[in-house]
Amino acid sequence: MNAPTSWTADPLDTAQQLADTFALTAAERDKQGGNPKYERDLIRQSGLLGLSIPQQYGGQGSSWNTIFKTIQQIAQADSSLAHVYGFHHLLIATVQLFAQPEQYAPWFEQTAKDSLFWGNTLNPLDKRTSAQQISEHEFIFHGDKSFCSGSIDSDILLCSGFNDAGKLLIGVIPTARDGVSFLGDWNNMGQRQTDSGTSHFEQVKIHRDELLLNPGPLSTPYSSLRPLIAQLIFVHLFLGVAEGAYQTAIATVKTQKAWSKSLAENAVNDPFTQKHFAEFYVQLEGVRLLAGKAIATLQAAWDVGESLTASQRGEVSIAVATAKIAATNASLNITQNIFQVMGARATTAKLNIDRFWRNVRTQTLHDPIDYKYQEIGEWVLTGKVPDPSFYS
Amino acid sequence: MNAPTSWTADPLDTAQQLADTFALTAAERDKQGGNPKYERDLIRQSGLLGLSIPQQYGGQGSSWNTIFKTIQQIAQADSSLAHVYGFHHLLIATVQLFAQPEQYAPWFEQTAKDSLFWGNTLNPLDKRTSAQQISEHEFIFHGDKSFCSGSIDSDILLCSGFNDAGKLLIGVIPTARDGVSFLGDWNNMGQRQTDSGTSHFEQVKIHRDELLLNPGPLSTPYSSLRPLIAQLIFVHLFLGVAEGAYQTAIATVKTQKAWSKSLAENAVNDPFTQKHFAEFYVQLEGVRLLAGKAIATLQAAWDVGESLTASQRGEVSIAVATAKIAATNASLNITQNIFQVMGARATTAKLNIDRFWRNVRTQTLHDPIDYKYQEIGEWVLTGKVPDPSFYS
Amino acid sequence: MNAPTSWTADPLDTAQQLADTFALTAAERDKQGGNPKYERDLIRQSGLLGLSIPQQYGGQGSSWNTIFKTIQQIAQADSSLAHVYGFHHLLIATVQLFAQPEQYAPWFEQTAKDSLFWGNTLNPLDKRTSAQQISEHEFIFHGDKSFCSGSIDSDILLCSGFNDAGKLLIGVIPTARDGVSFLGDWNNMGQRQTDSGTSHFEQVKIHRDELLLNPGPLSTPYSSLRPLIAQLIFVHLFLGVAEGAYQTAIATVKTQKAWSKSLAENAVNDPFTQKHFAEFYVQLEGVRLLAGKAIATLQAAWDVGESLTASQRGEVSIAVATAKIAATNASLNITQNIFQVMGARATTAKLNIDRFWRNVRTQTLHDPIDYKYQEIGEWVLTGKVPDPSFYS
Amino acid sequence: MNAPTSWTADPLDTAQQLADTFALTAAERDKQGGNPKYERDLIRQSGLLGLSIPQQYGGQGSSWNTIFKTIQQIAQADSSLAHVYGFHHLLIATVQLFAQPEQYAPWFEQTAKDSLFWGNTLNPLDKRTSAQQISEHEFIFHGDKSFCSGSIDSDILLCSGFNDAGKLLIGVIPTARDGVSFLGDWNNMGQRQTDSGTSHFEQVKIHRDELLLNPGPLSTPYSSLRPLIAQLIFVHLFLGVAEGAYQTAIATVKTQKAWSKSLAENAVNDPFTQKHFAEFYVQLEGVRLLAGKAIATLQAAWDVGESLTASQRGEVSIAVATAKIAATNASLNITQNIFQVMGARATTAKLNIDRFWRNVRTQTLHDPIDYKYQEIGEWVLTGKVPDPSFYS
Repeated sequence: MNAPTSWTADPLDTAQQLADTFALTAAERDKQGGNPKYERDLIRQSGLLGLSIPQQYGGQGSSWNTIFKTIQQIAQADSSLAHVYGFHHLLIATVQLFAQPEQYAPWFEQTAKDSLFWGNTLNPLDKRTSAQQISEHEFIFHGDKSFCSGSIDSDILLCSGFNDAGKLLIGVIPTARDGVSFLGDWNNMGQRQTDSGTSHFEQVKIHRDELLLNPGPLSTPYSSLRPLIAQLIFVHLFLGVAEGAYQTAIATVKTQKAWSKSLAENAVNDPFTQKHFAEFYVQLEGVRLLAGKAIATLQAAWDVGESLTASQRGEVSIAVATAKIAATNASLNITQNIFQVMGARATTAKLNIDRFWRNVRTQTLHDPIDYKYQEIGEWVLTGKVPDPSFYS
Repeated sequence: MNAPTSWTADPLDTAQQLADTFALTAAERDKQGGNPKYERDLIRQSGLLGLSIPQQYGGQGSSWNTIFKTIQQIAQADSSLAHVYGFHHLLIATVQLFAQPEQYAPWFEQTAKDSLFWGNTLNPLDKRTSAQQISEHEFIFHGDKSFCSGSIDSDILLCSGFNDAGKLLIGVIPTARDGVSFLGDWNNMGQRQTDSGTSHFEQVKIHRDELLLNPGPLSTPYSSLRPLIAQLIFVHLFLGVAEGAYQTAIATVKTQKAWSKSLAENAVNDPFTQKHFAEFYVQLEGVRLLAGKAIATLQAAWDVGESLTASQRGEVSIAVATAKIAATNASLNITQNIFQVMGARATTAKLNIDRFWRNVRTQTLHDPIDYKYQEIGEWVLTGKVPDPSFYS
Repeated sequence: MNAPTSWTADPLDTAQQLADTFALTAAERDKQGGNPKYERDLIRQSGLLGLSIPQQYGGQGSSWNTIFKTIQQIAQADSSLAHVYGFHHLLIATVQLFAQPEQYAPWFEQTAKDSLFWGNTLNPLDKRTSAQQISEHEFIFHGDKSFCSGSIDSDILLCSGFNDAGKLLIGVIPTARDGVSFLGDWNNMGQRQTDSGTSHFEQVKIHRDELLLNPGPLSTPYSSLRPLIAQLIFVHLFLGVAEGAYQTAIATVKTQKAWSKSLAENAVNDPFTQKHFAEFYVQLEGVRLLAGKAIATLQAAWDVGESLTASQRGEVSIAVATAKIAATNASLNITQNIFQVMGARATTAKLNIDRFWRNVRTQTLHDPIDYKYQEIGEWVLTGKVPDPSFYS
Repeated sequence: MNAPTSWTADPLDTAQQLADTFALTAAERDKQGGNPKYERDLIRQSGLLGLSIPQQYGGQGSSWNTIFKTIQQIAQADSSLAHVYGFHHLLIATVQLFAQPEQYAPWFEQTAKDSLFWGNTLNPLDKRTSAQQISEHEFIFHGDKSFCSGSIDSDILLCSGFNDAGKLLIGVIPTARDGVSFLGDWNNMGQRQTDSGTSHFEQVKIHRDELLLNPGPLSTPYSSLRPLIAQLIFVHLFLGVAEGAYQTAIATVKTQKAWSKSLAENAVNDPFTQKHFAEFYVQLEGVRLLAGKAIATLQAAWDVGESLTASQRGEVSIAVATAKIAATNASLNITQNIFQVMGARATTAKLNIDRFWRNVRTQTLHDPIDYKYQEIGEWVLTGKVPDPSFYS
């Protein structure tokens, strides 16, 4: 695929165009599930895959704010595509956090030049893939890995396995590498076009130079920013979905009469309807600001680099967890209660409005929100910031 | 179909057997949608269709409590079947409330003898079906009618149309009557096997003796019990679904480890998990008791008969509205939050656990819950009971 | 004091008369705090102190339902008096559960004959009072005890101390016993006339026959009903306060104009106001039914007697905990939100409407509600009923 | 009183010193009610009364952000003093919005020089004070006015009356003007040292030059910023109180053991306790950001001046209403639920911790929050911004 022609456009405009296009078919594609190849190619062509790549490697070197806003915009229309798009940027960031420029420079240059799409097979809770060193420079990855969002139709794969000592090794390889295959078994109630199914590694050879060993995963406060970026992507998925649901509800209610017992004639003047929308708005505004603060905190930490302290990293963690709790609650509440204002006719399968709820209900389960509360509460009461992990 | 052999069994045992059978295929049938002919025949064979028919006509003359409990039991497994099953009893009651024994005796006898399934095409908000008198004893019903739950595969149909004066006429006819057809166009996000789509009446001839004219629809406080029975069926649908979801969650959590950060080893000992289940339980217990009180109030009013006063009818209305608000809130909350305790793996399409939420989210929109609050609040503050209507 | 003349009256009528009288001064007495001697004497004269005493000892032997309803009625007007009145009955029950008829017969006969008021100095968490045996039949209680509701102006005192082995000994003595004194130091934000301050025991002699040793405290499932009766008293305090607040709000709102932006002219027709009251009503109805179920469960267990099993006792515990959670939430919500509907003028100190909130906010802290949730959740998930303790 | 010596200090430091001093006696002064003369003089001496006065008149010309933050800081310790302090700045702003520099220059110069404290007797809902013109330049104000926060011990008074045509006239006079008196009748459940009682105007002479006639009250979008500043003061009162309550709870819980059934030993490690505090924190963070956004929106509109459009003013109105809803909900929730984590001993009157709840419960009733929701909902659905009024 040739380099996109639109790199000079404002990324937010580009993302909006993508979102507008995705919106036309999102309801239908949700029912189909599977791999949205056509839409993934539109993302490739849009140039947005280069946002997170520093300019010296041919990318746009955008701010985190720009990157997260494009995720949010796409999620308003289609949270599956927003998910794999966001994870692409997460994987680019992962390499920057877990490895050195000498190693990743060629990957980034190629990614920027050819608009390569990165896919994820890094699920640290699934220990079925082994990583064995068979010579000084060669390793064999073998086994299955679940929850591999964005793996199918990816160009580059972040893969992972555990060695005999129980250490997690993470590699970067072409998806086309011999022995890599995907079961295509993702069929869940939400996020249905994320291809978050099982990958299989059949004696896959990986060169030492493809492993992210310096400094390696979560080895420093700075490298431990990685899961916080993942969590903040989720925040923007939840926020985008909630906004999409909210806009759908507004458009619907504007056309409706009020219920026969209402003191108002039109739904837009019905007091109960108005109060529901105000509740949605107040929640959304709160989440938008909390997400914005989390981005700013993350960007500041990102800009510090390897000298980031554990305490500074902890501040980012708290800001992200705060935004995640608010975004989780708001998105579940709004995607559930828009039906209350739209009424029975909004349940027709043709409109597929339940996909908003199914998408956030699914994705908000990535890790239990109760333990995000727990982390914040512990920090409030003891000052202890959350221990870095792939979930905190 | 021959008369069922099981009429001597305890209806609650029979309903539980049906529920257990339905549970085996409920997840799969929800995906298919359409008409559950096999399961509808099981209901016919069970003898439960005779519960609401007085004994003098060959039915079982069960109490309302027994009837609602069987609806609730079936809803725990399959709220679509519970819906059409409940509506069958609603239609039997409708005839008793809107007409006289001389008229309905033969219908009831045949229903009891042959286990006939009644279907609904009475949607008073849809005025597209006209009812024209063409001779002293003949009427023509013509046009479409939406939201006709349980119409397909029914044996007898409650149908309705508006005459030129805007008066609602309701008739009882064999579903096989010439000119009656169903579009089979019900495809909504929940209650997917209720066949709640469009009926078409093509110049359908209806005899005067088939119309419910004495006393007619909602013409007295007593006849106005009809919508309250409908609302109380919904209450037991919501309650049953919530209980089904709750039981699914318990079974799932019992097998799980607690999250890695928990102070407990197993999920059943995790404090957050325990608190969620306690919240579910307290809500369910409250709804069960409110539903029970509403049944008792309805039964007492039912037993009064035509001398029921508007004020006595109003008390039933308030008890039913109270139960409906609590059941609506509990069922939405529980079907949404069971995921929080079960975690990400519960989202697999194979389990189809989102159907619980989709079913109550759909059915709770029958009429806006805000106006149930409004009715109760008005009554609390002014003593005015809700005006009878097809929704109050 | 002579035996009351009103023992033949319906206890609910008598309680309502007391409540009506207390209501006249409740706002003012809340500000004063201290001991409501005049009102306590009205309770003595009412005959209600004999409700829980079996008829063979000259009492009325009323059902638990009657006893709890009188507590609830009094709490609608004055939850401090309802508290000490309820605790009187708790102490009568305590003796029945922890001792044998031979021992308590004379106490009950005197209580019934002279309308004696029992007071509480049993706080098992406060271990400052020692109980030392100084001879075969004599013990010395010495030290302080906090949270002694109803102690001042009582006639008989349930007292407690720990012996050297750490065992809790409970005795029944005349309040006038040498060495017993009260610091009168209860000055809290709520339940201000319960005299729940500190008692001092200065080398108080207690005869072995005054100790409740057979079967003793919480020694059997049956004797362990005691804390459940205490918790159910709290439930009826919370419910009564919530009802009192609700009635106050209704009376106030009935006189008000709606806010200038309302679509209605009068507050009683304002949609938001109506919805708030409906929420209050639905909550109250739920609590009333849950409390009723808990009473029925308790009464059944009470009637079983010493053969009550741990599992049967556990069922009572769950029913009471369920009612307590619902009553806690409803009473806090209603006493807080009645202000929302009444508006700024309801904050005048003259009306003292904040006492409703202060009273339930104080009393709901008796033991942490989170651990009532925990107990129920554990039972739901594991089947384990709560271990008996003075709080479960 | 001489000009303060501290004008060169950072206002936030100065406000914190005041707050620290007020905190020492806030619990006790809340019980007393009445006029906090000593503390009001400390505010005068602090120099903070000059914050809102432009530098050309000798004030500090601080940003709205600084002004609101000082209100919030003081409210953490004492929301009565924060209220009258905030209203002083509101009155200074009122004059800038309703009048011209020529008129108010001398008032501001004197206020800055002598640290004069402004008081409020402008309650547009109370129409008992008449304003009659008796000559070309003289008016007579006569009658009562309720809810006059900060009137007692003020130096300058904003007063108001209605003329025969029903037009509201607002004047600025020395509080010492003949005929002005205060009934000292404020005795409410919260905000007890705000002196929000009744003022009496006995034939008070007011010169035409003392009336704010150009452009006059709410006569333009710009002048209509006044009620939004008032509402944003409330937001910072609610936020400050919630923060004060939260800090009190943290300090208390840090010293406590966990409940006996907890899996943790200390309260700070109890999962339920941690979750409660996390909920508080997430709510507070949301309110802080929404308040900050509202300030920024207001400041931008303030800087525009008289050319402000109705639509721009509407945006401020929505941002302020959004912050007010969130602050209302958060402050009521936090001041109520801190007790849940602190337990029964936190109810002692000595600590007077219920004052946090009483203060916000009182002040949040200034105007009904339901109609703030209504305004936002209407705007969401129709685009119509709230009509300016003294409450919107």
